[in-house]
Amino acid sequence: MPKVNAERLLKDLRHLRSIGAVGKGVVRPAFSDMDMAARRWLRSRYEAAGLTATIDGVGNVLGRSPNPGQALLIGSHSDTQPTGGWLDGALGVIYGLEVVRALSEDPETRHLAVDAVSLQDEESRFYGCLGSRSLCGFFTDGMEQGITDKDGILLTDALKEAGLHDVPRLRLNREQYLGFLEAHIEQGPQLEEAGLGIGVVTSIVGLGGIRFTFKGQQNHAGTTMMATRRDASAALYALASAINEAFPKVAGERSVWTMGRAVIEPGAASIIPGYAELELQYRDRSTAVLDAFEATAHRLVDEINARGGATVTSHPARVRVAPAHMDEGFREHLARSAEKHAPGKWTQMPSGAFHDAGIIADFMPCAMLFIPSIGGISHDFAEDSHDDDILLGCQVLADSAAGILAA
Amino acid sequence: MPKVNAERLLKDLRHLRSIGAVGKGVVRPAFSDMDMAARRWLRSRYEAAGLTATIDGVGNVLGRSPNPGQALLIGSHSDTQPTGGWLDGALGVIYGLEVVRALSEDPETRHLAVDAVSLQDEESRFYGCLGSRSLCGFFTDGMEQGITDKDGILLTDALKEAGLHDVPRLRLNREQYLGFLEAHIEQGPQLEEAGLGIGVVTSIVGLGGIRFTFKGQQNHAGTTMMATRRDASAALYALASAINEAFPKVAGERSVWTMGRAVIEPGAASIIPGYAELELQYRDRSTAVLDAFEATAHRLVDEINARGGATVTSHPARVRVAPAHMDEGFREHLARSAEKHAPGKWTQMPSGAFHDAGIIADFMPCAMLFIPSIGGISHDFAEDSHDDDILLGCQVLADSAAGILAA
Repeated sequence: MPKVNAERLLKDLRHLRSIGAVGKGVVRPAFSDMDMAARRWLRSRYEAAGLTATIDGVGNVLGRSPNPGQALLIGSHSDTQPTGGWLDGALGVIYGLEVVRALSEDPETRHLAVDAVSLQDEESRFYGCLGSRSLCGFFTDGMEQGITDKDGILLTDALKEAGLHDVPRLRLNREQYLGFLEAHIEQGPQLEEAGLGIGVVTSIVGLGGIRFTFKGQQNHAGTTMMATRRDASAALYALASAINEAFPKVAGERSVWTMGRAVIEPGAASIIPGYAELELQYRDRSTAVLDAFEATAHRLVDEINARGGATVTSHPARVRVAPAHMDEGFREHLARSAEKHAPGKWTQMPSGAFHDAGIIADFMPCAMLFIPSIGGISHDFAEDSHDDDILLGCQVLADSAAGILAA
Repeated sequence: MPKVNAERLLKDLRHLRSIGAVGKGVVRPAFSDMDMAARRWLRSRYEAAGLTATIDGVGNVLGRSPNPGQALLIGSHSDTQPTGGWLDGALGVIYGLEVVRALSEDPETRHLAVDAVSLQDEESRFYGCLGSRSLCGFFTDGMEQGITDKDGILLTDALKEAGLHDVPRLRLNREQYLGFLEAHIEQGPQLEEAGLGIGVVTSIVGLGGIRFTFKGQQNHAGTTMMATRRDASAALYALASAINEAFPKVAGERSVWTMGRAVIEPGAASIIPGYAELELQYRDRSTAVLDAFEATAHRLVDEINARGGATVTSHPARVRVAPAHMDEGFREHLARSAEKHAPGKWTQMPSGAFHDAGIIADFMPCAMLFIPSIGGISHDFAEDSHDDDILLGCQVLADSAAGILAA
């Protein structure tokens, strides 16, 4: 079976870290100078590994194997959060490169076709998972019009600045591929807390969101009696608290929900708020649970409105993302390789975070592998993983790729 | 008995409105050019009414009667909120001027001593009730150091800009006064809703405040399981909701409480908040009720902390203001005059809003009279009262002043 080269893997990971390094972290948002420098370097590494490499019109770096037959696509994204960790998607990108090299060095696997990819803007500077959406045909020419980042920079200008505006966008040919494998850090504490080295992802959780607006009557907090108030903040506190009490009753085992954004206006201690906003986000691997959360939230809104006081209305905060199920066959290969290299030290688990594989799963079979995050930290300069775990993950991925391709 | 001059009263009120007028409202915050212009005009009106008038070192305009014997002080404040209504304190200031004139024109009352006053910064641009505190000796030389408005302007610079830094600050001599009468718009809807013309204030409610801080652990909203979260926002929603459920059980008949300020950080839908702040304000005319609110809030904080998750700590948001009781004797005079001029159309009521009389009551006997606010609106450009109510209030105040001074 193919053997990953530990020194080469870690050296390339560290080189990629150096492009945009700030302290222990990395600042390499999509289409920034550092992001494009990283992509040009990756293209050269893909070519050195024997692939035919291209940077396409949305910034994806795709390295294609010269070998015949259906290929496995392996990779992740090399763009980062505005202040990102060094591993995040970069880990899976370098894994793809190393799997290509490891398979090409083993006489038993050198005939197998592995394409490597670094996808663009998974982190939503302009449009979340832009690169994978574009490769799968879900983001088509013209859709870039009017899209801006949070500073108001147009995507079209960023493409021009990066020299990509005249570059063709690649579309994957479904028939040329067996599927897609993505490795990623866990971004949570579960593997570390359980003393495990590998997580085989069962599904990427689905995601829904509701934005509640509360309309009351702004008034003097001293002279307006409780009975006649229409206090937008009181309705917000009541709804948020009711959601936190009701959701556990309909939740799945690993459901999560968060109300991380609340705005109360005018926001002064002695003024009864006339307006407020609350955003609820919920995730689960089951569509039925997402539906139950949505129905519960709407029922609680009706209850708050029936009380009088401020009026609550709800709007979808985002388009519902359906849960994405990972391919059973691919998962079996990952599970077998994990058990071989880390017997008893791996688990099946859903991904609570979203990933490019959640997009690509609508186009072709996908699977994902997680390695432990130290302290569960991610999207932070402090993000890190142990070298042993990094090496283990890549070896499991290489074995699995070989297994899937040889099957 | 003295008779107020309706035309003169309304003309002076409207002239004062014109100084700093913006649309239907007035922008005349303490020490602004418009505020000082209004104070110079008031000084000239006090002098025209036969008083010896001074603008003192904190901006109070005090008009002193030449008549012998203990005086009644009558007035309110002429500074406004940043975007204020035209009546608010201005009503009580012009009432004081008109009561002086009405008593001086009546042979039976012209020997009585009424001093008129426009107090400074009741509206807390720099320091709430600065003027009345200074007159009573509660704000002494040097206390102005380091005080700023919300834009960071130093009070010492504002005093210099207004030409007041070298001007002596007046202190009232307790023995020269019988007490203080203040008229004000109600700033609430109760008189209007009950079809009444006059409110005789029984007490000015006391006021307490608590600032809660919530310390949790900021984390990824997808990968951090509910059981291990320390979500600052969830603790805030739970505490605020518990306060709104528990306070009615210990509240007085006219207690009010408000949580008008809440901040949740970092405030993004997909990040578990690591920090939050909530401010609670509560008012009642009874110290026992204020104590019960404070004890209840602290008990609920303990309960939230016992649950685990984010940690709540509480700090006083402000110095407790004790309820201020209005003088019984003065109130009887006000009630008698109200019944004479508006039989059956007046009531006794507490003031839910704070006023200079709440400060001065610690120095000498005080009483207050309210007239109806249209729609209960105040601290807003739309604030208004009917002319008939304005005239009625001034006549009741003039009669009461004559009655108190002649007693």
